[in-house]
Amino acid sequence: MDLHILDHRLRVTSISKNGLVHFTHPLIKLIFLRNRTRCKFFSLTETPENYTAVLDEEGFKELQPSEHLKVEGSIWLPLNVVSNGNASSSSQAVGVTKIAKSVIAPLAQQHVSVFMLSTYQTDFILVRESDLSVVISTLEEEFSIFKEVGGESIPVHSQDVSNGLQKNGREAIQPTVHPVLIPQNQFCVMSLDPATLPSIATTLIDVLFYSNSPKEEDGSPSSQGIKFFSFSLIDGYISLVMDTEAQTRFPADLLFTSSSGELWRMVRIGGQPLGFDECGIVAQISQPLAESDISAYYISTFSFDHALVPEEDIASVVDMLQDQRKEPATS
Amino acid sequence: MDLHILDHRLRVTSISKNGLVHFTHPLIKLIFLRNRTRCKFFSLTETPENYTAVLDEEGFKELQPSEHLKVEGSIWLPLNVVSNGNASSSSQAVGVTKIAKSVIAPLAQQHVSVFMLSTYQTDFILVRESDLSVVISTLEEEFSIFKEVGGESIPVHSQDVSNGLQKNGREAIQPTVHPVLIPQNQFCVMSLDPATLPSIATTLIDVLFYSNSPKEEDGSPSSQGIKFFSFSLIDGYISLVMDTEAQTRFPADLLFTSSSGELWRMVRIGGQPLGFDECGIVAQISQPLAESDISAYYISTFSFDHALVPEEDIASVVDMLQDQRKEPATS
Repeated sequence: MDLHILDHRLRVTSISKNGLVHFTHPLIKLIFLRNRTRCKFFSLTETPENYTAVLDEEGFKELQPSEHLKVEGSIWLPLNVVSNGNASSSSQAVGVTKIAKSVIAPLAQQHVSVFMLSTYQTDFILVRESDLSVVISTLEEEFSIFKEVGGESIPVHSQDVSNGLQKNGREAIQPTVHPVLIPQNQFCVMSLDPATLPSIATTLIDVLFYSNSPKEEDGSPSSQGIKFFSFSLIDGYISLVMDTEAQTRFPADLLFTSSSGELWRMVRIGGQPLGFDECGIVAQISQPLAESDISAYYISTFSFDHALVPEEDIASVVDMLQDQRKEPATS
Repeated sequence: MDLHILDHRLRVTSISKNGLVHFTHPLIKLIFLRNRTRCKFFSLTETPENYTAVLDEEGFKELQPSEHLKVEGSIWLPLNVVSNGNASSSSQAVGVTKIAKSVIAPLAQQHVSVFMLSTYQTDFILVRESDLSVVISTLEEEFSIFKEVGGESIPVHSQDVSNGLQKNGREAIQPTVHPVLIPQNQFCVMSLDPATLPSIATTLIDVLFYSNSPKEEDGSPSSQGIKFFSFSLIDGYISLVMDTEAQTRFPADLLFTSSSGELWRMVRIGGQPLGFDECGIVAQISQPLAESDISAYYISTFSFDHALVPEEDIASVVDMLQDQRKEPATS
């Protein structure tokens, strides 16, 4: 398997709900007007708490400093696992499950924080630029590692990077087991031909920027659902994650999903905002999913993490999470 | 002929060029998301100086006070001349020319300020609410006057309104003759089925909100042209005024104009911003146009007035304006 360190230097930011009006101008540019910006990596996710924007330095330049904008201090680099045809895994699972044992678990053991961003097309594993040497030395046994520079893939090895030492040799500590929330709504993970993005512009703008102002005829929020909507435009590929209620607002013939009618349920991880320094959060949920071979998308946001599992597996995932939450008390 | 006082109470505002980013959120709502607003009268015109927004009270509520927003202090009411089938005029001219003698000239004589807003569909004559009694007593000889209230047209007479006296009996003073500018670009006045507005959303957003940020590949402004773009959505009807350069950016099959290839040239009136209190500016240009039976659209903005005359008539209009500018010196 190959691991690519992509040629994007990313910032992770959050925009407050009230502050969105001040960022509508740059965000619409980043979403719809590709020939006005050099930004190549853009992701915007609405959660009940805020909007998380992950974007490269060209995109970040568009956001003016504001009391409504929080910026995580680090530069993050996206990693991407590319199956080079001779993958030995017999797993049919997709998403973060596929990389749980090979990437997520080893990085957690080395106390490297990861910020996950699953899309329709692939799963991006964001790591801090300052952790890169640890990442490379940790993963080079399992992977051929390449750094993408200006469209070319250049092999890298731990001796190439300034500090090849392990980040720390601490004993594995018992990780915090975070509370989880299982909202009732069903989600779909979709894509769209970028050429047809203009056709859904007004709907997408309405959903992203005006969904908090009640419509004249319909002010009632869906019961027991969670507000969650994610749009990303990365290297020209569009990915959308939305619940089935939002999906009804889009024309059915333009958005497509990998298999018809595939629906996902959400596990939101964290009772309090998780921050960016704790390690092993993704590992904690992806490892048991991998053991059960259950597919999962995983989307980190500024405050919480979100796993999406197939609807038919949600009962067993809930059981698994309950077991996990009992164990610390009994051990 | 009938004159209708429409059921809209309007504000005339300007947004600074630098301030537009702060108003993108409400303006996009007013243009594209009709079911999120009760605004029924909305017009936005970009000029080199600023953006002029004319909108009813529901629309005005969407604009947050800001150092970038100037608001003319009055409530303005739109008047509309409706031909009731037995019009005696033999004129083929359209636009403000048609109402120059019957409306514009008498109001100027009574020192009533007007703010004109020609659209693809009709010409709105905006007058201050405080001038309404003068307007009615001035125009009721020529017109049957109706006030639209909740969808019904109610006849009004000068004795119905609180103050039927003429505004003032001052002698006609020699009006200021303002300098004019004749830009080189050609304009078209177009419309669009509101159902197809979403299809041009990204292009319209780009032109309206991002035309000042140079594109990567093309940062050169057109030579000798003036930046002028007007969009209005009034009672469900869309009107667009743009130059032929902007027109090339829109799909040719969605925008329509009254006769194919009809092009207009602009006369911008005013060397310094005109303000709102001077009377007779529209009359000064529309009367000679009426005498020559030359059609004209007329669009007032916060700083300047703009007449659009047919391309084939621009030479005679220029001659006419030069004569007008010589007369005060020789009289």
